[in-house]
Amino acid sequence: MSSSPNYLRPIDFKHGHIDMTHGAGGRAAAQLINELFAKAFDNEYLRQGHDGALLPLPSEGRLVMATDGHVISPLFFPGGDIGCLSVHGTINDVAMSGAKPLYLAASFIIEEGFALADLKRIVESMAAAAREAGVPIVTGDTKVVEKGKGDGVFISTTGVGVAPPGLCIDGRQAKVGDVILVSGTLGEHGVAVMSQRESLTFETAITSDTAALHTLVQTMLLALPDTQTLHVLRDPTRGGLATTLNEIAQQSGVDMLINEADIPVLPQVEAACELLGLDPLYVANEGKLIAICAPEVADTLLAAMRAHPLGQGAQRIGTVIEDAHGFVQMATRFGGRRVVDWLSGEQLPRIC
Amino acid sequence: MSSSPNYLRPIDFKHGHIDMTHGAGGRAAAQLINELFAKAFDNEYLRQGHDGALLPLPSEGRLVMATDGHVISPLFFPGGDIGCLSVHGTINDVAMSGAKPLYLAASFIIEEGFALADLKRIVESMAAAAREAGVPIVTGDTKVVEKGKGDGVFISTTGVGVAPPGLCIDGRQAKVGDVILVSGTLGEHGVAVMSQRESLTFETAITSDTAALHTLVQTMLLALPDTQTLHVLRDPTRGGLATTLNEIAQQSGVDMLINEADIPVLPQVEAACELLGLDPLYVANEGKLIAICAPEVADTLLAAMRAHPLGQGAQRIGTVIEDAHGFVQMATRFGGRRVVDWLSGEQLPRIC
Repeated sequence: MSSSPNYLRPIDFKHGHIDMTHGAGGRAAAQLINELFAKAFDNEYLRQGHDGALLPLPSEGRLVMATDGHVISPLFFPGGDIGCLSVHGTINDVAMSGAKPLYLAASFIIEEGFALADLKRIVESMAAAAREAGVPIVTGDTKVVEKGKGDGVFISTTGVGVAPPGLCIDGRQAKVGDVILVSGTLGEHGVAVMSQRESLTFETAITSDTAALHTLVQTMLLALPDTQTLHVLRDPTRGGLATTLNEIAQQSGVDMLINEADIPVLPQVEAACELLGLDPLYVANEGKLIAICAPEVADTLLAAMRAHPLGQGAQRIGTVIEDAHGFVQMATRFGGRRVVDWLSGEQLPRIC
Repeated sequence: MSSSPNYLRPIDFKHGHIDMTHGAGGRAAAQLINELFAKAFDNEYLRQGHDGALLPLPSEGRLVMATDGHVISPLFFPGGDIGCLSVHGTINDVAMSGAKPLYLAASFIIEEGFALADLKRIVESMAAAAREAGVPIVTGDTKVVEKGKGDGVFISTTGVGVAPPGLCIDGRQAKVGDVILVSGTLGEHGVAVMSQRESLTFETAITSDTAALHTLVQTMLLALPDTQTLHVLRDPTRGGLATTLNEIAQQSGVDMLINEADIPVLPQVEAACELLGLDPLYVANEGKLIAICAPEVADTLLAAMRAHPLGQGAQRIGTVIEDAHGFVQMATRFGGRRVVDWLSGEQLPRIC
């Protein structure tokens, strides 16, 4: 990012729109970066004004790097917008290896004609989310595509963090006998977005759970006498709980058995899912995590989760069992058992 | 990235197309990741199968982080494609602080209906560029948007590198008396893309200069007895040489004087620019760098650049001069002087 050239009128953030010059790398692009992005995200690293931000190196551990493209539609939804979502989503991807997120990079692809007022709102929401999480946006890039070649704005964020030495939290670590925990109620994000898309309103408002989970993860790690007892962390976003558990089962070469009655879903989400023809097990979450741990620490971990504001609704939902199929099975409320398969089609496009 | 669920037919990379299920996080998405991305990019970090890749931490220095969205149109152009470009572009952004690039992350936003054959070609080109540069793609993300809401594929890449301790290469470091060097001929990338877009053919083929410049930068640093004498490195991409020099002049609070006769431009690029109504000073490059150094090391640096395959055409093009306006001036071939302004409008949209 660069300093502003002289002799330009201030940008009209109330009535203005993005045009192709904002992506051309010249005067207008520099002005937009300075008057919007640099101002909102302001921090010592971004102020270096270089494409590559120079950053302090952690003293020990391993680096963690994660990237996530955000194409959610609509851009604004109950409980959030693409801006805060793009910060939370990538922080969570970094945190799911037990790492402390340190830095974020943001790449914007903006459609010509996009209202500057909307862009400003999104950028300010990102900035607020990054500040609240304590993870600065240290570098960025902005491109503009012609009207009809994009959809408002897409934001790809990349996070870098540091995992303490010795930690081994990984989708391949689930072991037979392990306990499966979830940090709270499922399905709010997907249902909030879908209801906005379908212009539905419900008696009880459903808002996205979008949130940065890194402090919850740190709380969980601190509660454990031996962090090696925490085997897997994963945020059930696209594809929901069902798909995420299937991924882990496959990677670890185990089966899982979950209990339908123990899976926390808000009644209004349950009702909305019925109306929308959705299964809450497959609906995306943006502020929840799944933890798979050794059975002897499950109670300790659950208590630690419940003591954190983002884990108050944490539940034990099942166990890892032996089998060679990599299946996820569910004991239903009616006493039967069924296989909970991967999401096979497209349940909710552009949900994140 | 995750392991593949069972029971799917292999993807038809010859005749198939991207559909919305490839972005939904379920079975089809996992299959695409496994059969295309994981296979092409294969490395030990990606094989971890986790959103966040765990990576060795450099032992000293500072981290460098850079991100770049790629929206180039057309996706394939003489000399390259969006795939290798997205690797080179971000490696270069990291390298321009003098850092050694270590890891890349890639975020794909793909339009529904995009031919899988084209996607495969692009991903394999990325993989080859990353391998050749020795910088692995350690994590990634794929999203799909509806037909008409994107344009084939957009790729945002993020790079992390390490800068040795003590290095201070930065757009704010240009000093009065410094010498301005450029690593080779200017304008090939922009002209190659524009001629493809306009379906022009020239007698002498013009191909993009897209290349990873990190080994050139390392060669330059090794040639210097004191690396503190290298003040600024910058790759003149969007906006070209003129805009990049203006940015540096602004950031450093200096003026610059460049000599038109010393600026290397291939005759066929000169001719094509005339035909297309472009000024080569403003045309994007993807395999060139500008170096600004103390005058006493200019000859050493120039010799080191010319000894590297990517710096054979290096030239001394001007000097940093005192003034408070942050202007770039050019001594013309005809003996006059003119101000070389920022790119003010949109010369070449979607050039990178």
